[in-house]
Amino acid sequence: MASHHIEIHYCTQCRWLLRAAWMAQELLTTFEQEITTLTLKPGAGGIFEVHVDSKLIWSRTQQGRFPDIKELKQMVRDSIAPDKNLGHSERSA
Amino acid sequence: MASHHIEIHYCTQCRWLLRAAWMAQELLTTFEQEITTLTLKPGAGGIFEVHVDSKLIWSRTQQGRFPDIKELKQMVRDSIAPDKNLGHSERSA
Repeated sequence: MASHHIEIHYCTQCRWLLRAAWMAQELLTTFEQEITTLTLKPGAGGIFEVHVDSKLIWSRTQQGRFPDIKELKQMVRDSIAPDKNLGHSERSA
Repeated sequence: MASHHIEIHYCTQCRWLLRAAWMAQELLTTFEQEITTLTLKPGAGGIFEVHVDSKLIWSRTQQGRFPDIKELKQMVRDSIAPDKNLGHSERSA
């Protein structure tokens, strides 16, 4: 089975550890079989980035906001488990 | 400044993600300046291990229990910031 590594780089000055850790737990729960490691990386200067296998999939600086958890899960799914159905969260509200 | 990497390897079958993520947040808060990355690693078979810079500092299999957070912080401190005072948690209750 392929191994996948996710990294969440977050700004400590902005106190973003809690949301980074929350998103980490959401991803590790949804992709329990697919994620090999999930790394939390303290940073500074307003950084909030998510990398999947070293590929940047979210940058708060570029996108101007945090990802919605549903959208982040879909982007991770598209990257590491394209055939995976995310269940009820996929159906439009 | 030296870079330090912590890894928490936890059993998903035992549902230990929440305690692993809790301990991760405690360590990333206490050692905000000292930790470069903290990696959560899903595993199986009752594993719960903490490595600091690839050195095993806690194994539930060997120690037969989970670490108390105070004791885990002292072990991490002894490993990556020996001079760091952990404040009121150091004084005996």
